[in-house]
Amino acid sequence: MILPTKVNICEVGLRDGLQNEDKIISTEDKVELIEDLIEVGFKVIELGSFMSPKAVPQMADTDELFLKFNNIADIEFRALVANRKGIERAINCGCRKVKLNVSASRGHNLANINMTPEESVSSFADNVEYATSHGLEVSGSISMPFGSPWEGSIPLSDVDSIVQAYINVGVTEISLSDASGMAVPNQIYEMCNFMKNKYSEVKWWLHFHNTRGMGMANILAGMMAGFTNFDSSLAGLGGCPFVPGAAGNVSSEDVVHMMDEMGISTDIDIVKLIEAAKKIQGLVGHTTDSYILKAGRSKDLLKQH
Amino acid sequence: MILPTKVNICEVGLRDGLQNEDKIISTEDKVELIEDLIEVGFKVIELGSFMSPKAVPQMADTDELFLKFNNIADIEFRALVANRKGIERAINCGCRKVKLNVSASRGHNLANINMTPEESVSSFADNVEYATSHGLEVSGSISMPFGSPWEGSIPLSDVDSIVQAYINVGVTEISLSDASGMAVPNQIYEMCNFMKNKYSEVKWWLHFHNTRGMGMANILAGMMAGFTNFDSSLAGLGGCPFVPGAAGNVSSEDVVHMMDEMGISTDIDIVKLIEAAKKIQGLVGHTTDSYILKAGRSKDLLKQH
Repeated sequence: MILPTKVNICEVGLRDGLQNEDKIISTEDKVELIEDLIEVGFKVIELGSFMSPKAVPQMADTDELFLKFNNIADIEFRALVANRKGIERAINCGCRKVKLNVSASRGHNLANINMTPEESVSSFADNVEYATSHGLEVSGSISMPFGSPWEGSIPLSDVDSIVQAYINVGVTEISLSDASGMAVPNQIYEMCNFMKNKYSEVKWWLHFHNTRGMGMANILAGMMAGFTNFDSSLAGLGGCPFVPGAAGNVSSEDVVHMMDEMGISTDIDIVKLIEAAKKIQGLVGHTTDSYILKAGRSKDLLKQH
Repeated sequence: MILPTKVNICEVGLRDGLQNEDKIISTEDKVELIEDLIEVGFKVIELGSFMSPKAVPQMADTDELFLKFNNIADIEFRALVANRKGIERAINCGCRKVKLNVSASRGHNLANINMTPEESVSSFADNVEYATSHGLEVSGSISMPFGSPWEGSIPLSDVDSIVQAYINVGVTEISLSDASGMAVPNQIYEMCNFMKNKYSEVKWWLHFHNTRGMGMANILAGMMAGFTNFDSSLAGLGGCPFVPGAAGNVSSEDVVHMMDEMGISTDIDIVKLIEAAKKIQGLVGHTTDSYILKAGRSKDLLKQH
C-alpha cells in the first residue's frame, strides 16, 4: 500500500459546514474560530462564499472575514464564488483565492440553466480572466463527478471533458467534490489515476462527504492514487443537499487522526483541532458526525493504564 | 486497486451488538430477527455466546436460539465460548461452531489471568479437543491485534506467536478483532499480507469497530490484502469496552451497500437488510451509528428524478 508521506487538509467547516446550519453564527464567533484554525495549523481554509446574502445568509459576513484575515501571508483563505459580482466582492475585501463550481450532472445543469456542464465552465471564461487580471487565483470544483441523483453514475469521459473545459479557461486547480455522497473507493481510485496521468499540470483536490459512511475509505483510495489534497470539515459539519438529516463532510478531526495514526504528516495539531471542533459543535448547538469527538484519539486510551 | 469479487459477511449484531445494550431483547423478537437475517441472505450469523447468564444476561437465551435454528444446514450459526461449560452447552443445543477469544495485549492478559496470550491459547487445547471430538468446529479470535489500551501498538511478532499458538491447538480459522477501534488501514494491510503469506492454511476473518470512523477504510485495506471474510453488525450496534458511548461495530448495511456499489458480491439483499436494521433499531429503542439508515442507498436518490 503506497501512500503519500504528507497530505494537505483544507478546513471547509466555515463554508460547507455552516451554510448547512439554520442558526447563523456571529462574525465574532467565526473570527475566534478562524484564529483557532490558524493556531491548529491549517494552511488552507475555506472562509465563506460570495453569494447573495439573501440566498445564503450564513455567509453574509464573508467580506468582513477576509478584511480581517487577508493580511496573513502563509495561509490560503479561499471562498466559493458564482459570478462577476462575487468576484468583485472578493477583490474588494482582499480575498486572493476563489473557487468556481459546476455540477458534473448534465441533467442537473440542463434543467437548471439550460447548459451542459462544459458550457457552464466555458461561460466562466470572462470571470476567470477578470479575476486573474485582478490578482486572484481561481480554482474550480466539479460537483458529483462520482454519481448524481439525476443520472446515477457519471461517465468518466463526461468528467474528463469538464476538466478539459476548466483547463481551457485557464483553471488548473480542480476539486472533485462528492456532494451527493455516492462515491466509492474503487471508482475514486480509477478516476484519480486517470486524471493524474492525463493532467499532470492540474493541482487536484478531493472533497468527500460521509453521507454513506465511506468518506474515510474514499480518502484512502484517493491517497493510493497519489492525491494529497483533501477537504474536511470541523466536527463533521455539513450535510447532503439531497438527504435532509444525513451526515456532513468527512470530519477534520477524524481525518487528521487517521493520518496521524497512519504516520502521514498533516502539520495539524490534533489536540488543538479537537478543541476547535468542540467549540464549533457548541456554537451550532447539536451533536455532529464526528467519531473522535465521541471516542477520543486512540492514543488517549493509553492514559487509562 | 485489486479487490475480491465476492466477500462473506458474518452478522454479529445479535451477539456483539445486543450484549452492549442495557435493554434485554426477548427471545421471541430475536427469533423474528434471525428469521429476517436468513431471508436477507446471511450465510454466517453469530447468534450469541455461552457465557454465564449472570455475567451476560443479554445472551442467556443462546441455547434456546440454537435449539430453534440448528437444523438449518446451509447457514453457519456460531457462538462465542470461553470454557468447558460453554462448550458443553453448545454441544447440548446443537451448535456446530464456537469461537474462542484471546486478547493480543500481554498487559491485559497478565493483569487479568496471569497468563500471556500464547499461554491462554495453549490452555484452550483440552477445550478444543473436547469440542472437536463432539463434532463442533472451533474458531479463534484475537482481540486488539492492531492496538490495545494497555500497550498502545502490538508488535506484529506478538500477534504472529498468538496465531501460531492457535494453530498448535488445532484452530485454523482465526479472526483479527479490532475491539478497541485503534486499527488503521496501512497497518491492517501490512498485517493481513503477512498473515496470508505465512499461514495459507488459515481461514481469516476481520472484525472492525467503527470507534474512530475508520471501519470502512479498514475493510477496504483488508480486501486489498486479499481478505474476504468480515464481521459487521445490524444497524451498527455494539460499542467499545473502553469508551462509553462510542460507535459500535461497523454497520452491516453500510458495508453491504459499499460492496454493492463497488461491484463486490455479498449475496445479501440490501433492501431487506435495511428493513432488518430498522427493526433492531426499533427494538433497542435508540438511534445507532448507521449511515444507510440515515441517508438511504445511493440508488434511492435516483427515484427522486
